[in-house]
Amino acid sequence: MTATAHITLLTALRTALGDANVLTEGDLSAWEMDWRKREQGRALAVVRPGSTEEVAAVVKACAAAGVSLVPQGGNTGMVVGSTPDASGEQVVLSLTRMNKIRKLDGANLTITVDAGCVLQSVQEACEAQGYLFPLSLAAEGSCTIGGNLGTNAGGTQVVRYGNTRELCLGLEVVTAQGDVWDGLSGLRKDNTGYDLRHLFIGSEGTLGVITGAIMKLYPMPAAQLTAFAAVPSLEAAVALLGLAHQHLNAGLTGFEVMGQFALGLVVKHFPQQRVPLWETSPYCVVLENSDNESEAHAREVFERLLEAALEQGCVTDAVVAESMAQAKALWHIRESIPLAQAQEGLNIKHDVSIQVSAIPAFVREADAALALAFPGVRLVNYGHLGDGNLHYNVQAPETADAEAFLRDQEKPINALVYALVGRYRGSISAEHGIGSLKREKLEEHKSPVALGLMRAIKQALDPHNLMNPGRVLKR
Amino acid sequence: MTATAHITLLTALRTALGDANVLTEGDLSAWEMDWRKREQGRALAVVRPGSTEEVAAVVKACAAAGVSLVPQGGNTGMVVGSTPDASGEQVVLSLTRMNKIRKLDGANLTITVDAGCVLQSVQEACEAQGYLFPLSLAAEGSCTIGGNLGTNAGGTQVVRYGNTRELCLGLEVVTAQGDVWDGLSGLRKDNTGYDLRHLFIGSEGTLGVITGAIMKLYPMPAAQLTAFAAVPSLEAAVALLGLAHQHLNAGLTGFEVMGQFALGLVVKHFPQQRVPLWETSPYCVVLENSDNESEAHAREVFERLLEAALEQGCVTDAVVAESMAQAKALWHIRESIPLAQAQEGLNIKHDVSIQVSAIPAFVREADAALALAFPGVRLVNYGHLGDGNLHYNVQAPETADAEAFLRDQEKPINALVYALVGRYRGSISAEHGIGSLKREKLEEHKSPVALGLMRAIKQALDPHNLMNPGRVLKR
Repeated sequence: MTATAHITLLTALRTALGDANVLTEGDLSAWEMDWRKREQGRALAVVRPGSTEEVAAVVKACAAAGVSLVPQGGNTGMVVGSTPDASGEQVVLSLTRMNKIRKLDGANLTITVDAGCVLQSVQEACEAQGYLFPLSLAAEGSCTIGGNLGTNAGGTQVVRYGNTRELCLGLEVVTAQGDVWDGLSGLRKDNTGYDLRHLFIGSEGTLGVITGAIMKLYPMPAAQLTAFAAVPSLEAAVALLGLAHQHLNAGLTGFEVMGQFALGLVVKHFPQQRVPLWETSPYCVVLENSDNESEAHAREVFERLLEAALEQGCVTDAVVAESMAQAKALWHIRESIPLAQAQEGLNIKHDVSIQVSAIPAFVREADAALALAFPGVRLVNYGHLGDGNLHYNVQAPETADAEAFLRDQEKPINALVYALVGRYRGSISAEHGIGSLKREKLEEHKSPVALGLMRAIKQALDPHNLMNPGRVLKR
Repeated sequence: MTATAHITLLTALRTALGDANVLTEGDLSAWEMDWRKREQGRALAVVRPGSTEEVAAVVKACAAAGVSLVPQGGNTGMVVGSTPDASGEQVVLSLTRMNKIRKLDGANLTITVDAGCVLQSVQEACEAQGYLFPLSLAAEGSCTIGGNLGTNAGGTQVVRYGNTRELCLGLEVVTAQGDVWDGLSGLRKDNTGYDLRHLFIGSEGTLGVITGAIMKLYPMPAAQLTAFAAVPSLEAAVALLGLAHQHLNAGLTGFEVMGQFALGLVVKHFPQQRVPLWETSPYCVVLENSDNESEAHAREVFERLLEAALEQGCVTDAVVAESMAQAKALWHIRESIPLAQAQEGLNIKHDVSIQVSAIPAFVREADAALALAFPGVRLVNYGHLGDGNLHYNVQAPETADAEAFLRDQEKPINALVYALVGRYRGSISAEHGIGSLKREKLEEHKSPVALGLMRAIKQALDPHNLMNPGRVLKR
């Protein structure tokens, strides 16, 4: 691209958005560096539109100049999907100025929001009106709803409420041509043609820019109770999950499994935390029961479940939180695992999913194969068992130089784990997406027919490959 | 198409499927005539493949011959979407021989089925193992799961479990090129690229042929209770729905509203049915509460809800079924409305959806406009209020010749209703789809941007327009 073409584009962008919202100088690393600090990109400009019309103007200006766009929300993605490449030829389209809650409709149980709304602010706006917006994940204080939709984010409540996709009733999208598709009808039933909503959700900004969304709300539960249970095996954890579905049904809003080594790391690095039951048990589970009647009722149902589980032998011991503070402390153990793991040293992360029924066999096989091929590796295994989603992470042997281990073994370890995931028909990215980090892996693991369909759709909706090129699909 | 080309194609089809499964002679009206008997088509052949590979062979043979395909399940669609046109140049691809249940996985809460399985047989297979497959609709004894997916069918349990779309975890599809996409992974989380599943669901066979699916199961509820309540207005019905969400939460598995005139038709034409409360109330509601504890608990919760509703004035009177037989009788009233309406005479049907919160205003406005423009028309208004889906039907004035009225007034009445639906941002087809019956209407009512995206996708996946051409989108 020539300097003149640059100037023409920047002039058009400044005219559309005002000088203050087209950043080209100073420290732009907040937009150019990905959250995990794996890649430092360089942008032609960072633009910050304040309305859907301004987004459309940006897309049109970039299309006219043949310049590609990288949509960005809170920049908290895990797979380098929303930061520019190093070319200095891409425009970062930051949605964070679009952060208005447009409407909350209690009778329709919906909230309509700008894409740049921070997830936590949406949760709070709903809570203030007595409604629950159940999407909840670690980055909720800075991630945006547009980013959640672009990546189809998961989190801890998926077992009851589904992924972000399942919570969305409609989108507003600026297409690659700069047209606005207003799909914010907020209907629960609408069979008038192809479901464009679900095509844009999870497409990581490669088909268009999500500028607004209408999301489902739920009544606020009257009580939430948390239990922490020791289980003798992963088979037992799966059996407990089945019992929990039966006893709690839709009351089951959380079901997280944690391996003994993972819990040991929490105890080691955060000794102030009281971790129950872990010392004598290969796995523990955190369960949450949301009840629409009362705390007393929640407790009664929970105790019936745990009694049945103890009787059947799928639980060996359990504690039920007596207060909100205790419940928080139990969840905090689960949430501390990634931090404890980071304290322990560099490690290799996997965000995989397998059919729930096959998880015990998968883990047994993966544990054995890794122990054989990489003697001494330590397995930090935890995750959302209710959804079949494991963070099956690998820590270097205790005596090894972690950095050297990672450098030499990350690729073969990934290859081993993903090959096994493939044999079990699992997913190599359950909730984090593909971005640029996993696009080569996607080519290896996705069926050629599926990849062919995806490429045909990308070509049809973004023929000039200007929307987040090289993410999800290779260029 | 020449006679020689016909013979070449039929020979290829017979070679692939065997003579017995390529029908060209005798009475083919079971496949050629749509369910509502609105259109008699004529097929080049009706083919009945018995496996996914045979479906792929049929698609390839037809593609080679440039002959278009009309996929068909139970042929119970409402919008003339699965029967051939009158040209005699289309092949009907009947999936009904593919009717095997492939696997039920209790721990994963999934069932994998051939597309041609009859819905009721899937429900029964699940129930036999103690699981609930919640999709339920009038045609369940003959419609197939592939047809349910192709049209994204709704039914009476959507308020809790969603449409067919929400119950599907993966598909097997034969593409327009005759390739097989095996997307039957059965994962609850999988963020590896575009969501092809949701693109094929609801596309009415225009993008590919669904040959198999993996569907979600739920634990069987311990008890189901039904109530029948008189409400003083639609506003009150919406308020009752809000209360029901609060009190029952996910226990609310049915919420149907019925207008007084609709109930009066049931009383008139089926005098053996005992319809409670209708005489003094403009609307009545059927509610269903599914409980995972016990009937006693279900009753207790239900009574608390109804007490609160009586106190707030959104219910004036209510009965709760004392037995399964009574519950069935109450549901039977609701289910008898379409039949009673047919007994009363020809009528004009609308399957619309509106945001739940806007339904009272919409109905008030529509009732008034119709009364003004078409004096004496009678409004048969009922439907799935929990999903914002009304079957807002129009019956000729009592004194009019119904046939003449329909002939002269169907178009202007549709125009009036759909224009109002458009103003309320509703849908002109909430659960029945587009088929060929509503494709002209779709062009008028869908945004040009959405139509453009749909056409681009159709062109990308089916460039020769051989998959159910002229359905959903015009040729």
